[in-house]
Amino acid sequence: MKILGLDSSGLVAGVAVVEDDILVAEYTTNYKKTHSQTLLPMLDELRNMIELDLNTLDAIAVASGPGSFTGLRIGAATAKGLGLGLNKPLVEVPTLEGLAWNLCGSDRLVCPLMDARRNQVYGAAYEFIPTQDSFCLRTVIPQGAAEVGVLMEQLTELARPVIFLGDGVPVYRNIINEKCNVPYAFAPACNNRQRAASVAALGGVYYRQGRTVSAAEHSPEYLRKSQAEREAEQK
Amino acid sequence: MKILGLDSSGLVAGVAVVEDDILVAEYTTNYKKTHSQTLLPMLDELRNMIELDLNTLDAIAVASGPGSFTGLRIGAATAKGLGLGLNKPLVEVPTLEGLAWNLCGSDRLVCPLMDARRNQVYGAAYEFIPTQDSFCLRTVIPQGAAEVGVLMEQLTELARPVIFLGDGVPVYRNIINEKCNVPYAFAPACNNRQRAASVAALGGVYYRQGRTVSAAEHSPEYLRKSQAEREAEQK
Repeated sequence: MKILGLDSSGLVAGVAVVEDDILVAEYTTNYKKTHSQTLLPMLDELRNMIELDLNTLDAIAVASGPGSFTGLRIGAATAKGLGLGLNKPLVEVPTLEGLAWNLCGSDRLVCPLMDARRNQVYGAAYEFIPTQDSFCLRTVIPQGAAEVGVLMEQLTELARPVIFLGDGVPVYRNIINEKCNVPYAFAPACNNRQRAASVAALGGVYYRQGRTVSAAEHSPEYLRKSQAEREAEQK
Repeated sequence: MKILGLDSSGLVAGVAVVEDDILVAEYTTNYKKTHSQTLLPMLDELRNMIELDLNTLDAIAVASGPGSFTGLRIGAATAKGLGLGLNKPLVEVPTLEGLAWNLCGSDRLVCPLMDARRNQVYGAAYEFIPTQDSFCLRTVIPQGAAEVGVLMEQLTELARPVIFLGDGVPVYRNIINEKCNVPYAFAPACNNRQRAASVAALGGVYYRQGRTVSAAEHSPEYLRKSQAEREAEQK
Protein backbone atom coordinates (compact mmCIF):
# COMPACT_ATOMS: atom_id res chain seq x y z
CA MET A 1 0.00 0.00 0.00
CA LYS A 2 1.52 3.27 -1.16
CA ILE A 3 0.05 6.63 -0.13
CA LEU A 4 1.01 10.12 -1.26
CA GLY A 5 0.44 12.73 1.44
CA LEU A 6 -0.02 16.45 0.82
CA ASP A 7 -0.33 19.24 3.37
CA SER A 8 -0.61 22.91 2.49
CA SER A 9 -3.13 23.83 5.18
CA GLY A 10 -0.86 26.33 6.94
CA LEU A 11 2.54 27.91 6.41
CA VAL A 12 4.09 24.49 5.85
CA ALA A 13 4.14 22.91 2.42
CA GLY A 14 4.66 19.17 2.64
CA VAL A 15 4.79 16.18 0.34
CA ALA A 16 5.46 12.61 1.45
CA VAL A 17 5.20 9.02 0.31
CA VAL A 18 4.49 6.25 2.82
CA GLU A 19 4.62 2.63 1.71
CA ASP A 20 3.15 0.19 4.25
CA ASP A 21 4.99 1.01 7.46
CA ILE A 22 7.87 2.97 5.89
CA LEU A 23 8.31 6.64 5.09
CA VAL A 24 9.89 6.42 1.63
CA ALA A 25 10.33 10.17 1.22
CA GLU A 26 9.25 13.45 2.74
CA TYR A 27 9.86 17.02 1.71
CA THR A 28 8.77 19.84 4.00
CA THR A 29 9.25 23.57 3.79
CA ASN A 30 8.06 26.33 6.08
CA TYR A 31 9.13 29.37 4.15
CA LYS A 32 7.72 32.58 2.77
CA LYS A 33 7.06 31.22 -0.73
CA THR A 34 3.41 30.51 -1.54
CA HIS A 35 2.28 26.92 -1.84
CA SER A 36 1.47 27.41 -5.52
CA GLN A 37 5.20 27.99 -6.02
CA THR A 38 6.36 25.08 -3.89
CA LEU A 39 3.97 22.14 -3.62
CA LEU A 40 4.10 20.73 -7.15
CA PRO A 41 7.84 21.43 -7.66
CA MET A 42 8.47 19.63 -4.35
CA LEU A 43 6.40 16.66 -5.50
CA ASP A 44 8.27 16.60 -8.80
CA GLU A 45 11.65 16.74 -7.04
CA LEU A 46 10.67 13.92 -4.71
CA ARG A 47 9.20 11.86 -7.57
CA ASN A 48 12.49 12.11 -9.46
CA MET A 49 14.63 11.35 -6.41
CA ILE A 50 12.79 8.13 -5.54
CA GLU A 51 11.91 7.27 -9.16
CA LEU A 52 8.25 7.18 -8.22
CA ASP A 53 5.71 6.10 -10.81
CA LEU A 54 2.61 7.96 -9.65
CA ASN A 55 0.48 5.18 -11.16
CA THR A 56 1.70 2.84 -8.42
CA LEU A 57 0.04 4.97 -5.71
CA ASP A 58 -3.01 3.49 -4.00
CA ALA A 59 -4.41 6.82 -2.86
CA ILE A 60 -3.71 10.49 -2.33
CA ALA A 61 -4.16 11.72 1.23
CA VAL A 62 -4.64 15.44 1.69
CA ALA A 63 -4.92 17.67 4.74
CA SER A 64 -8.57 18.57 4.30
CA GLY A 65 -8.94 21.46 6.72
CA PRO A 66 -9.29 23.52 8.72
CA GLY A 67 -6.52 25.94 7.81
CA SER A 68 -5.63 28.77 5.50
CA PHE A 69 -8.39 29.03 2.90
CA THR A 70 -5.92 29.63 0.06
CA GLY A 71 -3.64 26.87 1.30
CA LEU A 72 -6.49 24.37 1.56
CA ARG A 73 -7.63 25.25 -1.96
CA ILE A 74 -4.13 24.71 -3.35
CA GLY A 75 -3.94 21.36 -1.58
CA ALA A 76 -7.42 20.36 -2.74
CA ALA A 77 -6.74 21.44 -6.33
CA THR A 78 -3.48 19.49 -6.35
CA ALA A 79 -5.02 16.37 -4.85
CA LYS A 80 -8.09 16.52 -7.08
CA GLY A 81 -5.98 17.06 -10.20
CA LEU A 82 -3.73 14.12 -9.35
CA GLY A 83 -6.70 11.94 -8.39
CA LEU A 84 -8.57 12.69 -11.62
CA GLY A 85 -5.49 12.36 -13.82
CA LEU A 86 -4.32 9.13 -12.21
CA ASN A 87 -7.79 7.76 -11.46
CA LYS A 88 -6.93 7.26 -7.78
CA PRO A 89 -9.10 7.79 -4.70
CA LEU A 90 -8.48 10.58 -2.22
CA VAL A 91 -8.32 10.26 1.56
CA GLU A 92 -9.39 13.35 3.49
CA VAL A 93 -7.27 13.72 6.63
CA PRO A 94 -8.59 16.48 8.90
CA THR A 95 -5.67 18.87 9.44
CA LEU A 96 -5.83 18.67 13.23
CA GLU A 97 -5.84 14.85 13.17
CA GLY A 98 -2.81 14.90 10.88
CA LEU A 99 -1.05 17.29 13.25
CA ALA A 100 -1.91 15.10 16.24
CA TRP A 101 -0.51 12.06 14.41
CA ASN A 102 2.95 13.71 14.62
CA LEU A 103 2.83 12.67 18.27
CA CYS A 104 1.29 9.25 17.71
CA GLY A 105 2.07 7.08 20.71
CA SER A 106 1.88 9.86 23.28
CA ASP A 107 0.09 8.94 26.50
CA ARG A 108 -0.99 12.55 26.98
CA LEU A 109 -3.92 14.36 25.48
CA VAL A 110 -2.62 15.81 22.23
CA CYS A 111 -3.97 19.28 21.52
CA PRO A 112 -3.21 20.80 18.11
CA LEU A 113 -3.80 24.54 17.91
CA MET A 114 -3.82 26.44 14.64
CA ASP A 115 -3.97 30.21 14.64
CA ALA A 116 -7.37 31.09 13.12
CA ARG A 117 -6.89 34.89 13.52
CA ARG A 118 -9.64 37.04 15.02
CA ASN A 119 -8.67 35.78 18.51
CA GLN A 120 -9.58 32.21 17.69
CA VAL A 121 -7.82 28.91 17.19
CA TYR A 122 -8.77 25.85 15.26
CA GLY A 123 -8.32 23.37 18.04
CA ALA A 124 -9.14 19.86 19.19
CA ALA A 125 -7.89 17.23 21.61
CA TYR A 126 -7.12 13.62 20.86
CA GLU A 127 -5.84 10.58 22.67
CA PHE A 128 -3.99 7.56 21.34
CA ILE A 129 -5.37 4.13 22.15
CA PRO A 130 -2.81 1.31 21.84
CA THR A 131 -3.87 -1.41 19.41
CA GLN A 132 -2.28 -4.76 18.59
CA ASP A 133 0.48 -3.26 16.49
CA SER A 134 0.11 0.48 16.65
CA PHE A 135 -2.28 3.13 17.93
CA CYS A 136 -5.63 4.55 16.96
CA LEU A 137 -6.69 8.16 17.35
CA ARG A 138 -9.73 8.96 19.48
CA THR A 139 -11.34 12.38 19.56
CA VAL A 140 -11.71 13.83 23.07
CA ILE A 141 -12.58 17.42 22.11
CA PRO A 142 -13.95 17.64 18.55
CA GLN A 143 -12.36 20.09 16.10
CA GLY A 144 -13.76 23.59 16.09
CA ALA A 145 -12.98 27.27 15.87
CA ALA A 146 -12.90 28.63 19.40
CA GLU A 147 -11.37 31.18 21.70
CA VAL A 148 -8.24 29.62 23.15
CA GLY A 149 -9.36 30.47 26.70
CA VAL A 150 -12.53 28.36 26.25
CA LEU A 151 -10.44 25.44 25.04
CA MET A 152 -8.13 25.79 28.06
CA GLU A 153 -11.17 25.56 30.36
CA GLN A 154 -12.28 22.36 28.61
CA LEU A 155 -8.79 20.88 29.00
CA THR A 156 -8.63 21.86 32.65
CA GLU A 157 -11.93 20.05 33.27
CA LEU A 158 -10.50 16.90 31.70
CA ALA A 159 -7.68 16.96 34.28
CA ARG A 160 -5.15 15.08 32.15
CA PRO A 161 -1.62 16.02 31.05
CA VAL A 162 -1.61 17.72 27.66
CA ILE A 163 0.93 18.28 24.92
CA PHE A 164 0.35 21.23 22.58
CA LEU A 165 1.53 21.71 19.03
CA GLY A 166 0.76 23.83 15.99
CA ASP A 167 1.24 27.41 14.87
CA GLY A 168 -1.30 28.60 17.45
CA VAL A 169 1.15 27.80 20.25
CA PRO A 170 3.51 30.80 19.88
CA VAL A 171 0.53 33.12 19.24
CA TYR A 172 -1.41 32.08 22.35
CA ARG A 173 1.38 30.91 24.64
CA ASN A 174 0.62 33.53 27.28
CA ILE A 175 -3.03 32.51 27.47
CA ILE A 176 -2.03 28.83 27.67
CA ASN A 177 0.38 29.64 30.52
CA GLU A 178 -2.32 31.59 32.30
CA LYS A 179 -5.36 29.41 31.82
CA CYS A 180 -4.23 25.81 31.38
CA ASN A 181 -4.45 24.31 34.86
CA VAL A 182 -3.24 20.81 34.02
CA PRO A 183 0.35 19.66 33.43
CA TYR A 184 1.28 20.64 29.89
CA ALA A 185 4.21 20.66 27.52
CA PHE A 186 5.00 21.72 23.99
CA ALA A 187 6.07 19.47 21.11
CA PRO A 188 9.63 20.00 19.85
CA ALA A 189 10.62 21.62 16.54
CA CYS A 190 10.75 18.33 14.63
CA ASN A 191 7.07 17.61 15.30
CA ASN A 192 5.32 20.89 16.11
CA ARG A 193 3.93 21.78 12.66
CA GLN A 194 2.09 20.03 9.84
CA ARG A 195 3.87 17.05 8.27
CA ALA A 196 2.85 15.38 5.04
CA ALA A 197 4.33 12.15 6.44
CA SER A 198 1.67 12.17 9.16
CA VAL A 199 -1.06 12.90 6.61
CA ALA A 200 0.19 9.98 4.52
CA ALA A 201 0.57 7.62 7.49
CA LEU A 202 -2.83 8.42 9.01
CA GLY A 203 -4.24 8.48 5.47
CA GLY A 204 -3.02 4.90 5.13
CA VAL A 205 -4.94 3.93 8.27
CA TYR A 206 -8.12 5.53 6.89
CA TYR A 207 -7.53 4.00 3.44
CA ARG A 208 -7.45 0.53 5.01
CA GLN A 209 -10.76 1.39 6.71
CA GLY A 210 -12.27 2.24 3.31
CA ARG A 211 -12.57 5.94 4.13
CA THR A 212 -11.90 7.27 0.63
CA VAL A 213 -13.66 9.79 -1.61
CA SER A 214 -13.39 10.39 -5.33
CA ALA A 215 -11.44 13.37 -6.60
CA ALA A 216 -14.75 14.92 -7.72
CA GLU A 217 -16.29 14.50 -4.24
CA HIS A 218 -13.48 16.09 -2.23
CA SER A 219 -13.80 19.59 -0.89
CA PRO A 220 -11.99 21.17 2.06
CA GLU A 221 -13.59 21.60 5.47
CA TYR A 222 -13.05 25.26 6.31
CA LEU A 223 -14.92 25.21 9.67
CA ARG A 224 -15.61 28.94 9.30
CA LYS A 225 -16.95 31.25 6.64
CA SER A 226 -14.42 33.08 4.50
CA GLN A 227 -13.81 36.79 4.91
CA ALA A 228 -15.59 37.43 1.58
CA GLU A 229 -18.67 35.48 2.74
CA ARG A 230 -18.75 37.32 6.07
CA GLU A 231 -18.46 40.69 4.38
CA ALA A 232 -21.21 39.80 1.87
CA GLU A 233 -23.52 38.85 4.76
CA GLN A 234 -22.78 42.06 6.63
CA LYS A 235 -23.84 44.04 3.55
CA MET B 1 19.90 29.96 16.19
CA LYS B 2 19.96 28.03 12.92
CA ILE B 3 21.10 24.41 12.78
CA LEU B 4 21.64 22.17 9.77
CA GLY B 5 20.96 18.51 10.53
CA LEU B 6 22.35 15.58 8.56
CA ASP B 7 21.59 11.89 8.99
CA SER B 8 22.99 9.16 6.77
CA SER B 9 23.57 6.59 9.50
CA GLY B 10 21.19 4.00 8.06
CA LEU B 11 19.09 3.52 4.94
CA VAL B 12 17.60 6.98 5.37
CA ALA B 13 19.28 10.04 3.92
CA GLY B 14 18.07 13.19 5.62
CA VAL B 15 18.79 16.90 5.56
CA ALA B 16 16.96 19.50 7.66
CA VAL B 17 17.21 23.07 8.87
CA VAL B 18 15.80 24.05 12.25
CA GLU B 19 15.70 27.71 13.27
CA ASP B 20 14.94 28.24 16.96
CA ASP B 21 11.75 26.28 17.53
CA ILE B 22 10.75 25.92 13.87
CA LEU B 23 11.53 23.27 11.28
CA VAL B 24 12.25 25.45 8.24
CA ALA B 25 12.82 22.56 5.87
CA GLU B 26 13.38 18.82 5.85
CA TYR B 27 14.12 16.40 3.05
CA THR B 28 14.15 12.68 3.78
CA THR B 29 14.56 9.71 1.47
CA ASN B 30 14.62 6.01 2.27
CA TYR B 31 15.46 4.58 -1.10
CA LYS B 32 17.94 2.27 -2.74
CA LYS B 33 20.28 5.04 -3.91
CA THR B 34 23.51 5.41 -1.94
CA HIS B 35 23.95 8.42 0.31
CA SER B 36 26.83 9.67 -1.82
CA GLN B 37 24.27 10.09 -4.61
CA THR B 38 21.61 11.72 -2.49
CA LEU B 39 22.82 13.65 0.55
CA LEU B 40 24.54 16.63 -1.09
CA PRO B 41 22.01 16.96 -3.95
CA MET B 42 19.24 16.95 -1.31
CA LEU B 43 21.03 19.68 0.64
CA ASP B 44 21.48 21.70 -2.54
CA GLU B 45 17.79 21.32 -3.45
CA LEU B 46 16.70 22.38 0.00
CA ARG B 47 19.16 25.29 0.06
CA ASN B 48 17.72 26.60 -3.21
CA MET B 49 14.11 26.11 -2.14
CA ILE B 50 14.47 28.09 1.10
CA GLU B 51 17.14 30.46 -0.28
CA LEU B 52 19.47 29.40 2.51
CA ASP B 53 22.81 31.17 2.90
CA LEU B 54 24.92 28.45 4.53
CA ASN B 55 27.00 31.18 6.19
CA THR B 56 24.00 32.01 8.38
CA LEU B 57 24.10 28.59 10.05
CA ASP B 58 25.24 28.45 13.66
CA ALA B 59 26.28 24.81 13.55
CA ILE B 60 26.06 21.55 11.66
CA ALA B 61 24.54 18.66 13.59
CA VAL B 62 25.32 15.19 12.33
CA ALA B 63 24.14 11.72 13.34
CA SER B 64 27.43 10.53 14.74
CA GLY B 65 26.83 6.81 15.07
CA PRO B 66 26.29 3.99 15.54
CA GLY B 67 25.08 2.88 12.14
CA SER B 68 26.23 1.79 8.73
CA PHE B 69 29.99 2.37 8.55
CA THR B 70 29.80 3.71 5.00
CA GLY B 71 26.77 5.83 5.81
CA LEU B 72 28.44 7.32 8.89
CA ARG B 73 31.56 8.13 6.87
CA ILE B 74 29.52 9.90 4.20
CA GLY B 75 27.72 11.89 6.88
CA ALA B 76 30.98 12.70 8.68
CA ALA B 77 32.74 13.69 5.44
CA THR B 78 29.83 15.94 4.48
CA ALA B 79 29.60 17.57 7.91
CA LYS B 80 33.37 18.00 8.20
CA GLY B 81 33.62 19.47 4.70
CA LEU B 82 30.83 21.94 5.38
CA GLY B 83 32.23 22.78 8.81
CA LEU B 84 35.73 23.42 7.47
CA GLY B 85 34.51 25.34 4.44
CA LEU B 86 32.08 27.50 6.38
CA ASN B 87 34.15 27.68 9.58
CA LYS B 88 31.24 26.42 11.66
CA PRO B 89 31.24 24.07 14.65
CA LEU B 90 29.77 20.57 14.49
CA VAL B 91 27.37 18.99 16.96
CA GLU B 92 27.65 15.23 17.31
CA VAL B 93 24.20 13.72 17.88
CA PRO B 94 24.40 10.02 18.74
CA THR B 95 22.21 8.24 16.19
CA LEU B 96 20.07 6.50 18.80
CA GLU B 97 19.44 9.77 20.68
CA GLY B 98 18.40 11.41 17.41
CA LEU B 99 16.03 8.52 16.71
CA ALA B 100 14.57 8.73 20.21
CA TRP B 101 14.00 12.48 19.73
CA ASN B 102 11.44 11.58 17.01
CA LEU B 103 9.20 10.62 19.94
CA CYS B 104 10.14 13.53 22.20
CA GLY B 105 7.37 14.02 24.73
CA SER B 106 6.52 10.34 25.09
CA ASP B 107 5.88 9.21 28.66
CA ARG B 108 7.09 5.70 27.81
CA LEU B 109 10.61 4.39 27.66
CA VAL B 110 11.74 5.02 24.10
CA CYS B 111 13.84 2.19 22.72
CA PRO B 112 15.52 2.72 19.34
CA LEU B 113 16.76 -0.47 17.70
CA MET B 114 19.04 -0.45 14.67
CA ASP B 115 19.83 -3.68 12.89
CA ALA B 116 23.55 -4.29 13.46
CA ARG B 117 23.61 -7.61 11.56
CA ARG B 118 25.31 -10.68 13.07
CA ASN B 119 22.26 -11.17 15.34
CA GLN B 120 22.84 -7.88 17.13
CA VAL B 121 21.14 -4.53 17.42
CA TYR B 122 22.49 -1.13 18.26
CA GLY B 123 20.05 -0.31 21.00
CA ALA B 124 19.40 1.93 23.97
CA ALA B 125 16.52 3.18 26.10
CA TYR B 126 15.71 6.77 26.96
CA GLU B 127 13.10 8.67 28.88
CA PHE B 128 11.87 12.22 28.44
CA ILE B 129 11.88 14.48 31.47
CA PRO B 130 9.55 17.49 31.17
CA THR B 131 11.33 20.82 31.59
CA GLN B 132 9.96 24.36 31.79
CA ASP B 133 9.27 24.61 28.07
CA SER B 134 10.14 21.30 26.53
CA PHE B 135 11.75 17.98 27.45
CA CYS B 136 15.21 16.67 28.10
CA LEU B 137 16.47 13.22 27.17
CA ARG B 138 17.75 10.94 29.92
CA THR B 139 19.59 7.71 29.22
CA VAL B 140 18.08 4.66 30.95
CA ILE B 141 19.98 1.93 29.07
CA PRO B 142 23.18 3.27 27.47
CA GLN B 143 23.79 2.68 23.77
CA GLY B 144 25.54 -0.51 22.84
CA ALA B 145 25.70 -3.39 20.41
CA ALA B 146 23.82 -6.30 21.95
CA GLU B 147 21.71 -9.34 21.25
CA VAL B 148 18.13 -8.18 21.11
CA GLY B 149 17.07 -10.86 23.62
CA VAL B 150 19.46 -9.42 26.23
CA LEU B 151 18.00 -5.96 25.70
CA MET B 152 14.46 -7.35 26.09
CA GLU B 153 15.48 -8.84 29.46
CA GLN B 154 16.79 -5.45 30.59
CA LEU B 155 13.55 -3.77 29.53
CA THR B 156 11.45 -6.39 31.28
CA GLU B 157 13.38 -5.75 34.51
CA LEU B 158 12.61 -2.02 34.24
CA ALA B 159 8.87 -2.87 34.21
CA ARG B 160 7.80 0.22 32.30
CA PRO B 161 5.81 0.61 29.06
CA VAL B 162 8.09 0.87 26.03
CA ILE B 163 7.80 2.20 22.51
CA PHE B 164 10.16 0.77 19.90
CA LEU B 165 11.40 2.33 16.69
CA GLY B 166 14.16 1.91 14.14
CA ASP B 167 15.08 -0.49 11.36
CA GLY B 168 15.78 -3.23 13.91
CA VAL B 169 12.06 -3.51 14.66
CA PRO B 170 10.95 -5.45 11.56
CA VAL B 171 14.07 -7.64 11.75
CA TYR B 172 13.61 -8.65 15.40
CA ARG B 173 9.86 -8.30 15.79
CA ASN B 174 9.37 -11.98 16.62
CA ILE B 175 11.97 -11.84 19.39
CA ILE B 176 10.40 -8.64 20.76
CA ASN B 177 6.97 -10.32 20.77
CA GLU B 178 8.41 -13.36 22.51
CA LYS B 179 10.70 -11.80 25.09
CA CYS B 180 9.43 -8.31 25.92
CA ASN B 181 7.30 -8.81 29.02
CA VAL B 182 6.21 -5.21 29.52
CA PRO B 183 3.51 -3.30 27.61
CA TYR B 184 5.03 -2.20 24.32
CA ALA B 185 4.11 -0.52 21.07
CA PHE B 186 5.74 0.48 17.82
CA ALA B 187 6.20 4.00 16.46
CA PRO B 188 4.20 4.83 13.31
CA ALA B 189 5.64 5.28 9.81
CA CYS B 190 6.08 9.04 10.14
CA ASN B 191 8.47 8.67 13.08
CA ASN B 192 9.96 5.17 13.02
CA ARG B 193 13.23 5.87 11.17
CA GLN B 194 16.05 8.43 11.31
CA ARG B 195 15.03 12.05 10.75
CA ALA B 196 17.44 14.90 10.12
CA ALA B 197 14.86 17.21 11.74
CA SER B 198 15.36 15.38 15.02
CA VAL B 199 19.15 15.53 14.64
CA ALA B 200 18.87 19.28 14.02
CA ALA B 201 16.40 19.87 16.86
CA LEU B 202 18.35 17.84 19.43
CA GLY B 203 21.56 19.28 17.98
CA GLY B 204 20.14 22.71 18.81
CA VAL B 205 19.65 21.64 22.42
CA TYR B 206 23.26 20.39 22.61
CA TYR B 207 24.53 23.52 20.83
CA ARG B 208 22.94 25.70 23.51
CA GLN B 209 24.71 23.53 26.11
CA GLY B 210 28.04 24.23 24.39
CA ARG B 211 28.45 20.63 23.25
CA THR B 212 30.22 21.36 19.96
CA VAL B 213 33.37 20.02 18.31
CA SER B 214 35.45 21.40 15.46
CA ALA B 215 35.18 19.86 12.03
CA ALA B 216 38.71 18.50 12.47
CA GLU B 217 37.83 16.86 15.80
CA HIS B 218 34.72 15.01 14.66
CA SER B 219 34.80 11.31 13.99
CA PRO B 220 31.92 8.82 14.02
CA GLU B 221 31.26 6.48 16.94
CA TYR B 222 30.99 3.04 15.34
CA LEU B 223 30.51 1.08 18.61
CA ARG B 224 31.92 -2.03 16.93
CA LYS B 225 34.95 -2.90 14.86
CA SER B 226 34.55 -2.94 11.09
CA GLN B 227 34.49 -6.19 9.16
CA ALA B 228 37.95 -5.39 7.75
CA GLU B 229 39.35 -4.86 11.26
CA ARG B 230 37.81 -8.11 12.52
CA GLU B 231 39.19 -10.05 9.58
CA ALA B 232 42.65 -8.54 10.04
CA GLU B 233 42.63 -9.58 13.71
CA GLN B 234 41.54 -13.12 12.84
CA LYS B 235 44.55 -13.42 10.53
